[in-house]
Amino acid sequence: MKKSRLEAFSDGVFAIVITLLILNVHVPEGRTATLQSLRPLVPSLITFMLSFIIVGVYWVAHHHMLHFVTQVNRRLLWLNLLVLLSVVFIPFPTSLLGTGFNNPFAVRLYGLSLIATNLSGLFFWLYATAHPELMEANVSRQFVRTVNIIHSSPMLGYGLAVVLAGWSTKASLILYAAVPLFFILPNPLLERSISTATRNTSEE
Amino acid sequence: MKKSRLEAFSDGVFAIVITLLILNVHVPEGRTATLQSLRPLVPSLITFMLSFIIVGVYWVAHHHMLHFVTQVNRRLLWLNLLVLLSVVFIPFPTSLLGTGFNNPFAVRLYGLSLIATNLSGLFFWLYATAHPELMEANVSRQFVRTVNIIHSSPMLGYGLAVVLAGWSTKASLILYAAVPLFFILPNPLLERSISTATRNTSEE
Amino acid sequence: MKKSRLEAFSDGVFAIVITLLILNVHVPEGRTATLQSLRPLVPSLITFMLSFIIVGVYWVAHHHMLHFVTQVNRRLLWLNLLVLLSVVFIPFPTSLLGTGFNNPFAVRLYGLSLIATNLSGLFFWLYATAHPELMEANVSRQFVRTVNIIHSSPMLGYGLAVVLAGWSTKASLILYAAVPLFFILPNPLLERSISTATRNTSEE
Amino acid sequence: MKKSRLEAFSDGVFAIVITLLILNVHVPEGRTATLQSLRPLVPSLITFMLSFIIVGVYWVAHHHMLHFVTQVNRRLLWLNLLVLLSVVFIPFPTSLLGTGFNNPFAVRLYGLSLIATNLSGLFFWLYATAHPELMEANVSRQFVRTVNIIHSSPMLGYGLAVVLAGWSTKASLILYAAVPLFFILPNPLLERSISTATRNTSEE
Repeated sequence: MKKSRLEAFSDGVFAIVITLLILNVHVPEGRTATLQSLRPLVPSLITFMLSFIIVGVYWVAHHHMLHFVTQVNRRLLWLNLLVLLSVVFIPFPTSLLGTGFNNPFAVRLYGLSLIATNLSGLFFWLYATAHPELMEANVSRQFVRTVNIIHSSPMLGYGLAVVLAGWSTKASLILYAAVPLFFILPNPLLERSISTATRNTSEE
Repeated sequence: MKKSRLEAFSDGVFAIVITLLILNVHVPEGRTATLQSLRPLVPSLITFMLSFIIVGVYWVAHHHMLHFVTQVNRRLLWLNLLVLLSVVFIPFPTSLLGTGFNNPFAVRLYGLSLIATNLSGLFFWLYATAHPELMEANVSRQFVRTVNIIHSSPMLGYGLAVVLAGWSTKASLILYAAVPLFFILPNPLLERSISTATRNTSEE
Repeated sequence: MKKSRLEAFSDGVFAIVITLLILNVHVPEGRTATLQSLRPLVPSLITFMLSFIIVGVYWVAHHHMLHFVTQVNRRLLWLNLLVLLSVVFIPFPTSLLGTGFNNPFAVRLYGLSLIATNLSGLFFWLYATAHPELMEANVSRQFVRTVNIIHSSPMLGYGLAVVLAGWSTKASLILYAAVPLFFILPNPLLERSISTATRNTSEE
Repeated sequence: MKKSRLEAFSDGVFAIVITLLILNVHVPEGRTATLQSLRPLVPSLITFMLSFIIVGVYWVAHHHMLHFVTQVNRRLLWLNLLVLLSVVFIPFPTSLLGTGFNNPFAVRLYGLSLIATNLSGLFFWLYATAHPELMEANVSRQFVRTVNIIHSSPMLGYGLAVVLAGWSTKASLILYAAVPLFFILPNPLLERSISTATRNTSEE
């Protein structure tokens, strides 16, 4: 399979998932909507935005990984479908979390779902980088290790949130929001290592 | 990230949002549908068409902006996701507005959601044009200012509609419909300034 | 706007509409599904297949039209969005028709929705062919007229179905199924005129 | 129609179907979700994953087939839409199967839906390979036969599952899971025959 087909298909799945998230925010049935009557929707609205941002981060990370891949074999194809499976699943724990922020179970399931997504992304990267024939020639060992850390470190944050949920679900939610912000806010360290690696490969 | 990937992903999101809007028009449960029994659907049907046209205008505007962008850096990528976040949100206020045209709150939320979308588009354009290394060489200062006005002026119309909603929701709805029509109907001023700028850049 | 962007966006909308149709077929709530318990779904299942085929025909027709277009101006862009608006609407009358085949009102609305789609396609073609600067050079007047007839004749069939619905909804449904079959089944006349025109233009 | 358009449209449909599957997993309404309260969702979650994998296998198979096709005529186009019709239908039997694993009727309908998909894929392949003008030049007769077997053999597995459902629905479900695994797990026989055929054609 050509890499461009894999990219287009994955982009389609990411685009649909990120858009379907709004379907979890249901307009309450009844007479007339007021600011008061929409108050129960606040958790759904916040989880909508949170998951939108997190899926956005995954989409960007997916591109950065594929940028260094030149060939897709059958195993890498299925590892990519594993990544997509975990991404497609995200609307479910999102919807569950939207039913209430104080439920440690819902908060934990959300975190576990994110950990599963990072883990599948890590598997993809470990497999690809262990097969140099699938990769750009100029990817340095150090860059491979940097990406390993980028994929693994959010799992620590999410894992901590899962543990903390029994004590304070608020603390967990703050962690869920803080982790993606680390990847979105200006971040000289991250930008330097990506742009160095990118410069070493043929096309941007 | 290559610009073409960003375009394809954004197009996917726009296409899904514009299509999901019809899911807000629910066939009433019960025995047999008649013209009479569908009367309560009139607001949903009108808001469906209104939002379809407005999202269509946003899609066209998004293309015009990206046409002059040549490079996408991390910040522009995230500003683009901010635009998409506000577009993906539109089905929710659309659905709310469809529950009744006489509710000033629903009318206002709809307008605020459109203002947020124009604002995020304006941020995208301001950031891109402030970084000449991301832009086509031949974009004139005057054209940049014209687009600033194109993005800002609908906010005035929508803002007026938000204010008027307490007095007459009908007036607000007419404003919501009038603003996009300004961009759709033949409009020599708009066409001249866009085509001048387009002619100055390498590809159409 | 480049034609390829318009094509990709339109393809996205067609793909989503054709897939969303299955969401109208609801699994009945309750204990255990049996062949008996699914009998009320027969109309939904048939309308799902009918609309799938009809939207498929529209997608193919849309491509054939765009094949002969080389430039897209603002008006053609908005005529294309008008086509997409009528296509995106189709799931609603489909869903309504799925609630009962014996309801002349639902049968009529379905036909009117298809007529609106053909009409918008015809507008697109009439506008494009009236502006030679937007078209391939080698499109003959005779081919333009053939496509006019291809777009118009289904309206006669659907219009007849709308009229007949008061007398026999069954007859209307048969007409709805017969019209697209005319375009799908081997059809030497249609194929000859399309392939002649295609051969005259630069790329297939 | 150019092959790339057909591929892009089909990819869009596959991406939407694979993502819509999660919409069948409904968060139960009520007070607070617990591991206990989610137990009724286990069948939906398992069928979600099962159908995700099966649709993934179909997507990969679709690409492998199209890889050897160079020209798309009207009949092949409609055979492709027949494949997509059966793929778009899959969410319905998936949803039904998710309402209970012990219902032989739901288990059978699921299997029949998969058989229909394999059958339509086989029709596509048989038609394409019977028209050498639509195919790559270097596709050997032996490879054509290998793909015939690849498309047909799952039907045996699914057919057996349909028959066994009256005796043990569990056995049927294990068969549904085993068949796609055969295509996903490392499989030297399959890989050799595909890579031999691919090497013989111009581009990968």
